Amino acid sequence: MFNEVLPDIIQKNDTKAILLVADGVGGTTVDGQTELEAATTPNLDSLAAKSSLGLHYPVGYGITPGSGPGHLALFGYDPIKHQIGRGILEALGSGMTVKKGDLALRGNFASMKNGLITDRRAGRISTEKCEELVAKIRENLDNIDGIEFDIKAARDYRFAVVFHDESLRDDIEDADPQQIGLTPRPAIAKNPESERAAQIVNKFIDAVTEILKDETPANTCLIRGAANTPDIAPFEERYGTKAQGIAVYPMYKGLARLVGMETSDGLQTFDEEIAHLKKTFDDFDFHFLHFKYTDSAGEDGDFDRKVAMIEQFDDALPQILDLGADVLAITGDHSTPSCMKSHSWHPVPILVNGQFAFRDDCKRFTERDAANHGILGHIPGQAIMMYILANCNRLMKFGA
Amino acid sequence: MFNEVLPDIIQKNDTKAILLVADGVGGTTVDGQTELEAATTPNLDSLAAKSSLGLHYPVGYGITPGSGPGHLALFGYDPIKHQIGRGILEALGSGMTVKKGDLALRGNFASMKNGLITDRRAGRISTEKCEELVAKIRENLDNIDGIEFDIKAARDYRFAVVFHDESLRDDIEDADPQQIGLTPRPAIAKNPESERAAQIVNKFIDAVTEILKDETPANTCLIRGAANTPDIAPFEERYGTKAQGIAVYPMYKGLARLVGMETSDGLQTFDEEIAHLKKTFDDFDFHFLHFKYTDSAGEDGDFDRKVAMIEQFDDALPQILDLGADVLAITGDHSTPSCMKSHSWHPVPILVNGQFAFRDDCKRFTERDAANHGILGHIPGQAIMMYILANCNRLMKFGA
Repeated sequence: MFNEVLPDIIQKNDTKAILLVADGVGGTTVDGQTELEAATTPNLDSLAAKSSLGLHYPVGYGITPGSGPGHLALFGYDPIKHQIGRGILEALGSGMTVKKGDLALRGNFASMKNGLITDRRAGRISTEKCEELVAKIRENLDNIDGIEFDIKAARDYRFAVVFHDESLRDDIEDADPQQIGLTPRPAIAKNPESERAAQIVNKFIDAVTEILKDETPANTCLIRGAANTPDIAPFEERYGTKAQGIAVYPMYKGLARLVGMETSDGLQTFDEEIAHLKKTFDDFDFHFLHFKYTDSAGEDGDFDRKVAMIEQFDDALPQILDLGADVLAITGDHSTPSCMKSHSWHPVPILVNGQFAFRDDCKRFTERDAANHGILGHIPGQAIMMYILANCNRLMKFGA
Repeated sequence: MFNEVLPDIIQKNDTKAILLVADGVGGTTVDGQTELEAATTPNLDSLAAKSSLGLHYPVGYGITPGSGPGHLALFGYDPIKHQIGRGILEALGSGMTVKKGDLALRGNFASMKNGLITDRRAGRISTEKCEELVAKIRENLDNIDGIEFDIKAARDYRFAVVFHDESLRDDIEDADPQQIGLTPRPAIAKNPESERAAQIVNKFIDAVTEILKDETPANTCLIRGAANTPDIAPFEERYGTKAQGIAVYPMYKGLARLVGMETSDGLQTFDEEIAHLKKTFDDFDFHFLHFKYTDSAGEDGDFDRKVAMIEQFDDALPQILDLGADVLAITGDHSTPSCMKSHSWHPVPILVNGQFAFRDDCKRFTERDAANHGILGHIPGQAIMMYILANCNRLMKFGA
């Protein structure tokens, strides 16, 4: 599309850029105006008045992006070419790290009686119980046929497991009968290359079932969503920038690590994220900072809380501006209109500020202002990194 | 580009959508304003004020679309990948149905004397005479080497012929000397795969010439535009929607059938089209309704009549709105500025209305309002189906 010429034109310098992502920030007009329009945002307004704005499509026209594709696009990767499987997302969301060649899977603890699956969610056991069972498995099971693995509890009855062996390919059917009253269904390879993965998964299920045989109600597990780590060129190799991702939630730290960004543990609030950004500002060329709460409020269908979260985001902006980054970009990974209580396909406003950025006629960071006056127009999400790099003077002239 | 992920995200539900196509509706400003700007359109204005607008490029920047590519793009198919040959278009325009594997060709009745072509159009015989000749051929000729065919008169001296045999490939040169005073030129295969098609076409020409040997002035025929039916995934398979196309002119019904829509015969006016839409509204998920008269007036160079046709279109809109479709999209398949008396490359306004559509600042369905305020921006024609599906909630989230 455009970034195939990157390797020829990337150059390094000592500029610093911040990509500020307000998750799900975009909206639509069912309530008369969008959350961004309804919010009082003096800092965003004043920044918009001296920046370039536009609207972006994270994945494509009409497509509602999940968090994975949405962030990959913001990081400048093709979200359709680099699809992130369910198992990888569950592992990332559980705070695990996946490496090239890993095979990640989602697990359910389940109940079995007389050889039949009687509950696919083991009575929806608590997260604490899940952690206890995972610890028990870990104590009793070190490897499968010499292949090492990590296992981590997720929410409720769910866990993630990651096998570290490049020979395990992800083309296997789910080991899940999908309904109760049936015998456990083994993992089945879809092609010869995945035969080994199916064997390892089935041995893992057998070992877990043996370890949990005296537990109630969770005495076996179902395994789904097998996925290899996507083969993604690391951020630093692709862009020549040393990058970090700052996020509270494991999923977003995981997505940052997936593209080779460094991450830190233990941040619990937006204030702590900003404090961390300040502390580490000199250590990286590129900072991705994730603000989750706009999306959470949108998903909950709470228009007023989403407005309040945008205002909280706006309040913090001066601290970020004070760092004096050469380029600051602000956007969302997708829209989450509170009237829909879900992600949506609506295009997302994008703001790029830097020394040479065109000051268009936008006065606010809103969907409407971006549509009416944005100099950037309507762009694919992947274009945003190109604008950040260009404004950082990190892209040389193409051709003579 | 974006719709390669369709198979993964399509879901079915009971929503209903209408795609209203005012053929050639877009214009340019040679007369001070466009036909859409000059027209009085209270219903379109009020709909525009609560919809999302934009401008679309049916085929590409600067490209003037024919009716075939224009409609394929609106139906969400890549008009460059799926090219519709002249023979297929002539067959569709003559009201014939083509099936996968068919070979369709355009024919001219012509005059021959002493073995030389003396008139490539047989003195422009009337459509009635053409029908008479076609009937005579049909009575005397059942098949060519066992291959069945359909033949139908088009306008004046033209006809279409469709051979039903998958072995006939369309890479053959026109059987047309292009100028008078030359001997008839046979069809010549461009490669070995098309050898059989060339033979069959030449035998057909010989048979027709024998049947018409005592006719004057039309005593032979020229054959051009060999084309196989394009291999297009049916609409219902691609989108999961049961679809119909409502049109007066055979060409547009033919294009609808080409993508697997159902069509009806016998509709003569826009009023009859709308009556048919009402009658069959419950029977389909997706309705394509074609309004021809904006294009006809534009092609005739009649600015005022095109304005009047837009106003007629606007008058009918309330009846369509009353059906309560979940999503209504209005656009054209290309622009036909009356000052140019032809199709043109100018981008075409698109309007999408639905429960969650963003209400942008457009107050009218005009090229200018869409450019100034349209939240959809400038999009490829193929994106329109994605927006219709998204607004119908027929596209699941892409990735988690």
